[in-house]
Amino acid sequence: MPIERGPQAFPRTEYLRRLANVKATMTRRSFRALLVSDPANITYLTGYTAHSAYVPQGLIVDLDQEEPFFIVRKMDAPAGIYQTFLDRSRVLGYPEDLVANKTRNGFDVIVERLVGTGAAKGRIGLEFEHLSHAALKQLSAKLETEDVTGLITWLRLMKSDLEIAVMREAAAIADAAMLRGIEVIRPGVREADAAAEIYAQLARGANGKAGTSIATLAICAGSRSGTSHIAWADETFKAGTHVNIELGGVRHGYTSALMRTVSLGKPSDRLKRTHKAELAGLEAALAAARVGNTAGQVADAFTAEARKHGVEKESRCGYAIGINWTEVTASLKSGDPTVLEPNMTFHLMLGNWIDEDFGYAISETFRVTPGGGEALGQTPRHLFEV
Amino acid sequence: MPIERGPQAFPRTEYLRRLANVKATMTRRSFRALLVSDPANITYLTGYTAHSAYVPQGLIVDLDQEEPFFIVRKMDAPAGIYQTFLDRSRVLGYPEDLVANKTRNGFDVIVERLVGTGAAKGRIGLEFEHLSHAALKQLSAKLETEDVTGLITWLRLMKSDLEIAVMREAAAIADAAMLRGIEVIRPGVREADAAAEIYAQLARGANGKAGTSIATLAICAGSRSGTSHIAWADETFKAGTHVNIELGGVRHGYTSALMRTVSLGKPSDRLKRTHKAELAGLEAALAAARVGNTAGQVADAFTAEARKHGVEKESRCGYAIGINWTEVTASLKSGDPTVLEPNMTFHLMLGNWIDEDFGYAISETFRVTPGGGEALGQTPRHLFEV
Repeated sequence: MPIERGPQAFPRTEYLRRLANVKATMTRRSFRALLVSDPANITYLTGYTAHSAYVPQGLIVDLDQEEPFFIVRKMDAPAGIYQTFLDRSRVLGYPEDLVANKTRNGFDVIVERLVGTGAAKGRIGLEFEHLSHAALKQLSAKLETEDVTGLITWLRLMKSDLEIAVMREAAAIADAAMLRGIEVIRPGVREADAAAEIYAQLARGANGKAGTSIATLAICAGSRSGTSHIAWADETFKAGTHVNIELGGVRHGYTSALMRTVSLGKPSDRLKRTHKAELAGLEAALAAARVGNTAGQVADAFTAEARKHGVEKESRCGYAIGINWTEVTASLKSGDPTVLEPNMTFHLMLGNWIDEDFGYAISETFRVTPGGGEALGQTPRHLFEV
Repeated sequence: MPIERGPQAFPRTEYLRRLANVKATMTRRSFRALLVSDPANITYLTGYTAHSAYVPQGLIVDLDQEEPFFIVRKMDAPAGIYQTFLDRSRVLGYPEDLVANKTRNGFDVIVERLVGTGAAKGRIGLEFEHLSHAALKQLSAKLETEDVTGLITWLRLMKSDLEIAVMREAAAIADAAMLRGIEVIRPGVREADAAAEIYAQLARGANGKAGTSIATLAICAGSRSGTSHIAWADETFKAGTHVNIELGGVRHGYTSALMRTVSLGKPSDRLKRTHKAELAGLEAALAAARVGNTAGQVADAFTAEARKHGVEKESRCGYAIGINWTEVTASLKSGDPTVLEPNMTFHLMLGNWIDEDFGYAISETFRVTPGGGEALGQTPRHLFEV
């Protein structure tokens, strides 16, 4: 039996609006078609969030056609029909025999579609950085191609009000998960058991809205407060230490990230001083994150304020955020010239790994407004003591 | 203060054994050095599991040096010292200013190291498929490079007894999470709440061994039993439907995957027939997965047995599994010529998406033995009824 289309995160008009922006850019740059490979861009243009990008797949945006055409392996076509706004005739599953096949694979099917519809007669943009070297070689042998990595990603930077609403739902989930972590982190508790409670909350969601996926969780405790990007350890929390938590709530692919530090017992003077400096810097950065300023100026505002309090941070102060967490576009980094526009969203990421064994973390996911950055979540900006 | 090395998943001798195998291959193929970019290969050779591969990093294996040299951004160097067997002098954090920097980045530091140590005078192998196009261009402009994608991955296929022990721990976690799912999946329960319980168990682990990371979870219920690779939906389980679950337990980067189907109420005749056929096929495949047979013969054994019961499966029957789930080497697919050796590990993945809205899933992660495939986990091979 055919599968029915499932509930949609956004109305059809929202996807057509996004496509219209993409097509306007294509027209300006004289592209007839784009082959979209970045999974986040596919989510953006269709609603598809299945984890299938480890085999050949691609979304063809053709100037001459209203809806894109989505080519995936046969196993994933039902998810394409269920999850996306596309008409079922626009989702093609290629035979399973083409997976792990040395003579013919899904990219051959994609080429044939581009040739068959006449799109290959015009200029075709490919996202080089989201294609394997082998795939790019295969595609370039048969098509005139040009790199358009980033073209759609930059369009994603400024969110619609509908996207902001979804990111607020994600932020509420991040809030709930962080509060759950603060509830359960205590000396003697296994780090993995705290991780379990946080993950459970990230899935349950908040306000009746479930988490729709799970983002990477970092729990850096004790001497590991000086590390970033690692998971919890197979041990217990110790009194007199502190723990940095980085997590993200997810709704329909959109992530809202959040970091906080929890002190197990009275914080040291150093930790308190660091918190005070970073909090002041965070507020200065949010104030500077107003329409018309640059992304670089947001970082500069943080740096100047934190420095007044004796704290330096070497790493950048954040990055654009949206589908699948990081958007590779603007950075909150001194000198970044991106001019802020309403509803651009950033993760103001003020994790600061100062010594190998000492770090502190606070962050907000915010949207740009004329009055400054508006945090999407509501977790208090405390150095939590448990 | 310097960070101390943390608890190690494997003894130093195990890493040196793996490196000796890599170096033997390098010698045979006349490479002086390899630049390892595949995060799974970095885990394999060092123990590092931090999520930092979204910025330039690389592990240099130099024939002339016992330990590899690991170059990461400064923020990630403490994790490199904490997690790996490497001496701290072998972990270099490059300045944070090189992140999101258009004129100089981490790959420049990597090139300088290769040139400075003389390694660049010999042939250097790069993992093309784990480098961006921009990075490969940058590296190839300054070095004589050759593609060695897969070289280390193929060595990973055959596990040591120590690795098998870790994968058994991961399999026990997968078992516990699957049983937890079967406990909580009931008509009227929100899918997300079941996901929450499964995630929590994946983090808590089993037998006192915590999950050390979380792998992707698929819960495909109702008409979505015909889909694969998608998460749970924002709705409740319905009586009279069934749900396919795919999950993985993780220990120190190693994944053991597991799939089962749960029927909410009495299963339909079609579902029962499918289960019976797939179970018979699974047992035939495990029997065929003995030393000396090929990977293709395992798939053929499944196909012949399932066909006797009237069931066809189009997709391949599985793939090599280990660090970070899929290893891109051998497939359990008709014609795959890989000869099975002891302790090779595979995910015998018999998910079968037969109609757009009807599918069934059963799988085992197994190791090859002279007597056949030995499943690492112990979840009963039932069509569970709840």
